[in-house]
Amino acid sequence: MVKIAIMGYGTVGSGVYDIIKADNFAYEAMNPIEIKYILDIRDFPDHPEKQIFTKDFNDILNDDEIYCVVEAMGGLKPAYEFTKALLMAGKNVVTSNKELVATHGPELLKIAKENNLNYLFEASVGGGIPIIKPLCSSLKANTVKKIAGILNGTTNFILTQMIDEGMSFKDALKMAQDNGYAERDPSADIEGHDACRKIAILASLAWGEYVNYKDIWTEGITKITLEDVETASKLGYSVKLIGYCQKREKLAIWVSPMLVRHSCPLSAANGVFNAILVDGNYLGQSMFYGQGAGKFATASAMVADVIESVRHINAKKAYIEWNMPEKNNILPISESENRYFVRTKAEKGSIKKIFGNVSVNEINGERVFITDIIKECDFESKVKPLSPISKIRVLDA
Amino acid sequence: MVKIAIMGYGTVGSGVYDIIKADNFAYEAMNPIEIKYILDIRDFPDHPEKQIFTKDFNDILNDDEIYCVVEAMGGLKPAYEFTKALLMAGKNVVTSNKELVATHGPELLKIAKENNLNYLFEASVGGGIPIIKPLCSSLKANTVKKIAGILNGTTNFILTQMIDEGMSFKDALKMAQDNGYAERDPSADIEGHDACRKIAILASLAWGEYVNYKDIWTEGITKITLEDVETASKLGYSVKLIGYCQKREKLAIWVSPMLVRHSCPLSAANGVFNAILVDGNYLGQSMFYGQGAGKFATASAMVADVIESVRHINAKKAYIEWNMPEKNNILPISESENRYFVRTKAEKGSIKKIFGNVSVNEINGERVFITDIIKECDFESKVKPLSPISKIRVLDA
Repeated sequence: MVKIAIMGYGTVGSGVYDIIKADNFAYEAMNPIEIKYILDIRDFPDHPEKQIFTKDFNDILNDDEIYCVVEAMGGLKPAYEFTKALLMAGKNVVTSNKELVATHGPELLKIAKENNLNYLFEASVGGGIPIIKPLCSSLKANTVKKIAGILNGTTNFILTQMIDEGMSFKDALKMAQDNGYAERDPSADIEGHDACRKIAILASLAWGEYVNYKDIWTEGITKITLEDVETASKLGYSVKLIGYCQKREKLAIWVSPMLVRHSCPLSAANGVFNAILVDGNYLGQSMFYGQGAGKFATASAMVADVIESVRHINAKKAYIEWNMPEKNNILPISESENRYFVRTKAEKGSIKKIFGNVSVNEINGERVFITDIIKECDFESKVKPLSPISKIRVLDA
Repeated sequence: MVKIAIMGYGTVGSGVYDIIKADNFAYEAMNPIEIKYILDIRDFPDHPEKQIFTKDFNDILNDDEIYCVVEAMGGLKPAYEFTKALLMAGKNVVTSNKELVATHGPELLKIAKENNLNYLFEASVGGGIPIIKPLCSSLKANTVKKIAGILNGTTNFILTQMIDEGMSFKDALKMAQDNGYAERDPSADIEGHDACRKIAILASLAWGEYVNYKDIWTEGITKITLEDVETASKLGYSVKLIGYCQKREKLAIWVSPMLVRHSCPLSAANGVFNAILVDGNYLGQSMFYGQGAGKFATASAMVADVIESVRHINAKKAYIEWNMPEKNNILPISESENRYFVRTKAEKGSIKKIFGNVSVNEINGERVFITDIIKECDFESKVKPLSPISKIRVLDA
């Protein structure tokens, strides 16, 4: 019998409890998992196992029987202190806390390694989609060249409603809120902050060097209009909120709306679904698709991580190492290179004079074009005289 | 230094060599991998390491230094005898040999378990796409409900040419052969035999009970016409060769052309790409997409398996167990239930009389409709009086 604890009995934490209970979880010849404690500040007087609830973190920390702890509290405080204390006390930790991993990942992974423990976080990116583990193991023989992901279900739902139903951003946001996909304060989603933490985690994993999410250029979807979406569609593109990173000398990385070609498999990820495209030097393009959120999808990824930590009990753990970069390793956004989609009222002649022989489309009395690959600072100064109605980066996949 | 051997120096085997040499492969704090032998019946007099080639399998079998062997020979003879002998001699084996895994998997996995060894075969399905390992670990907390996969790149290339370029089957096949995607004798691909072995492996993994590929209903794409593909497209579907399995009391499993809705992410897998949709009870739909073949894509999956086997050196291995079913666990195809796409010259009235209130489309002087869900034997007897021009199963995803 392997004993574990769950910290935080909200949506995801209770999902972990439900899955383990429902399946009376036994893996291979392993002893079953027993949930010995649930930590939550709230009372659950009607819970069938109310005796296992505690409000005192020390019950878990000081219990030598606890082998693995599921941290589903979210936020930095007190999750950071708790996780650190648990790892130092020799307990494996499984988390869905992208905020914590993106902020204190290097330190927590280092402590885990020093103590031969797992600190696992499959559920922190893409909900239940297997992406962290494939990056760390299945793709291990590849050098990752590039990652582009639809990492936030709320914004993808909103954009899909705009694309498929011709809804305005405002109406689509309200619908997302009414359906429970968006918070009352939706800024973490629609301003791109959620996707930013996730791409920071993926980039850190892909190249083994910590990327601080605070250094990542982050734009949300609040400025995307129905006209942008419709015009892009006429050119054969969908507008998606993309977390992007590409390794050259420095790391080109950002979160922003991007035009994705209809023939790109990312374009098939609609509604609340997430999809992550990974370009490996040997494998070429691969994509991982599924539900990026939701109680049971996310909880099932955490249970798989618990099983993983139990699978090699007493054996040497597979470590993840995030080295701290010696200096800022991120390319300034102004130095990044992209193609750009532009809508303008300017005349064709002026466009051609500035951007050369690009193909210019007449759509609804506007001129619409996509530039060749150009450095962002050059693009910005060149496009200014055209007084663009909008300009959006184009994904090169 | 961990010493390994490669058996079979064809496309994939030489890819494994190239990757390990190019990357001078060192994983984490592990000692690097050294390739001590390459087994091949041919001579490679100009190879830079010609001294490591051998024609004698016993050199590998009897060398206690060899920890892991990469089997890239293909076929059953002598791969089966060699693999069995290696596992019994205490050596881990990594393979891309779907034929061997689908035929002798239960026995070889049992021997591996008894000797605490890995027998790993990520490269046997989907080339470099991570699918075997995600099924065995990341999705471990899920009960798989259903798998539907585009598992053969050659047939997908042919169908994509038919759909996108309006080519006939014959012309598309010739183009696949000219491009090196199809063999001169293309029957293993176009008759569905390749996909059949792969869906057998996935089904065996998903439910832990061996599925004999010889028992799987297998139809290829040779009867699919340009008219089928064009008509399906007008109704919003692509025609794909699908390996399908769904677990109810018995296992509904087959390989056949199926209509896939354009909104289904599988429909976005075009050309030589593969894609595998997995439906889990907690995760819902997830999809894995990428290059299902190719020298380096496949070889990179094998190298990842080698790393996996070395990662937990001397520790307890994670076993895969395929129990033998007590009796035939496969639903006869005649008992399976699907919706069916039908093209016929019969009149609307006759169709409605037989199939009730289905929506009947007039396309190019034909009546085209999709049935409700119906048992296959019932469908066959009902559709007969309509003298269908073609009838194709419809994927329910």
